[in-house]
Amino acid sequence: MTEPYTLILLRHGNSDWNQKNLFTGWVDVRLSDQGVAEAARAGELLTESGLRPDVLFTSVLTRAIQTANIALDKADLAWIPVTRSWRLNERHYGALQGKDKAQTLAEYGPEQFQTWRRSFDVPPPALAADAEYSQAHDPRYAGIDGEIPETECLKDVIERMLPYWEGTIAPELVAGKTVLVTAHGNSLRALVKHLDGISDDEIAELNIPTGIPLVYRLDADLKPIGAAEYLDPEAAAAGAAAVAAQGEKK
Amino acid sequence: MTEPYTLILLRHGNSDWNQKNLFTGWVDVRLSDQGVAEAARAGELLTESGLRPDVLFTSVLTRAIQTANIALDKADLAWIPVTRSWRLNERHYGALQGKDKAQTLAEYGPEQFQTWRRSFDVPPPALAADAEYSQAHDPRYAGIDGEIPETECLKDVIERMLPYWEGTIAPELVAGKTVLVTAHGNSLRALVKHLDGISDDEIAELNIPTGIPLVYRLDADLKPIGAAEYLDPEAAAAGAAAVAAQGEKK
Repeated sequence: MTEPYTLILLRHGNSDWNQKNLFTGWVDVRLSDQGVAEAARAGELLTESGLRPDVLFTSVLTRAIQTANIALDKADLAWIPVTRSWRLNERHYGALQGKDKAQTLAEYGPEQFQTWRRSFDVPPPALAADAEYSQAHDPRYAGIDGEIPETECLKDVIERMLPYWEGTIAPELVAGKTVLVTAHGNSLRALVKHLDGISDDEIAELNIPTGIPLVYRLDADLKPIGAAEYLDPEAAAAGAAAVAAQGEKK
Repeated sequence: MTEPYTLILLRHGNSDWNQKNLFTGWVDVRLSDQGVAEAARAGELLTESGLRPDVLFTSVLTRAIQTANIALDKADLAWIPVTRSWRLNERHYGALQGKDKAQTLAEYGPEQFQTWRRSFDVPPPALAADAEYSQAHDPRYAGIDGEIPETECLKDVIERMLPYWEGTIAPELVAGKTVLVTAHGNSLRALVKHLDGISDDEIAELNIPTGIPLVYRLDADLKPIGAAEYLDPEAAAAGAAAVAAQGEKK
């Protein structure tokens, strides 16, 4: 098979902590019932589209793995090979992990809040290794090929995600495989920024909705051919608006 | 880490076709509700035992993958690396795939029935590539490292399973990893026969119950140290008796 290559990005469905409006980051929460339904819908969208992923990449966080398992099971593709990496994890939210978004907004004001959420290169304060929501002692990160972060900005996410994209995911595309990446709001924003050449300033405005496959067609240099397309554009527009409004929820 | 190495075998839970008493083989049926509950119980048994698999191997059949996904999710281990291979698939039941076990017993008599179920080296008649329950055109077997069988006896299963054990699974054990293999009645009987040095005649009497982890401790030569142990011995004895009685169900 030759180009165009097909890359499908899927952000995990709504989680228990999305529902509670808490900063999550690397905390390993599960999908909410709504998230489970979104994942099943993503599988139906894949089937309806006729797209058939050959290989799957996920983060090591349960909500992304659940999303992939449910979607692929729905699409009768539970059996495709899967590789997981912490490099596809959500952004580490540092000391904000476990904090209420609305409370944080009220306590620190809209400017600081938006800086922490969307600044390209300003990370939140670091999370102490002995803090309740630290992953410093989580066995899944024992012996990883890198250092466990204590906080991250989007720039940090790009720096740890891109080598995985280039070294592990891209070769599968170039080998002609249709690739599904099931990950998180910020690890996928990092990848979309890279693929679409979005500037450091403009990326702040980009929001990726949960549970709707986003399809890229890539040329031989892995440059997008036309704009990437959501498999359910109307639901995607509504979902992106909902993400943008986070924190404003009472 | 050094020996003893830990190997955990898990036969998938009850499937829709187990429940209907049909020969399944490579037909890709799903777990029944009972099978889903068994898989969750297997995850609880893992947690209670304190055993923590580092890596997972499964067949490419949905019922084994579902079992592993549910059990590991229950044990908070959804994130461990997984590798799948057709070499861990159930025995291909040839022309018996899709046939009712009780009807087959009535039609062919107990001797022929038992030969097909438990003979070491007599396979059932081959399944034609255009038959309803053939996998000759299933995309998951496109480009596999071997030939898709049209029927198999246990001896055939051993011949395609052992190279995978030796080349892919055993090295993970020797590297000190606790290994979970989630597979099928006959692919696991093949592995147990190899590990425990069971003769071609005696293996006919061995039945592995569904959904109960079986734990081996292996020495540096991957020879068992003592007898393997089920994590729930009473349930395992009852389950093995139920497997032995299959076909007698009305």
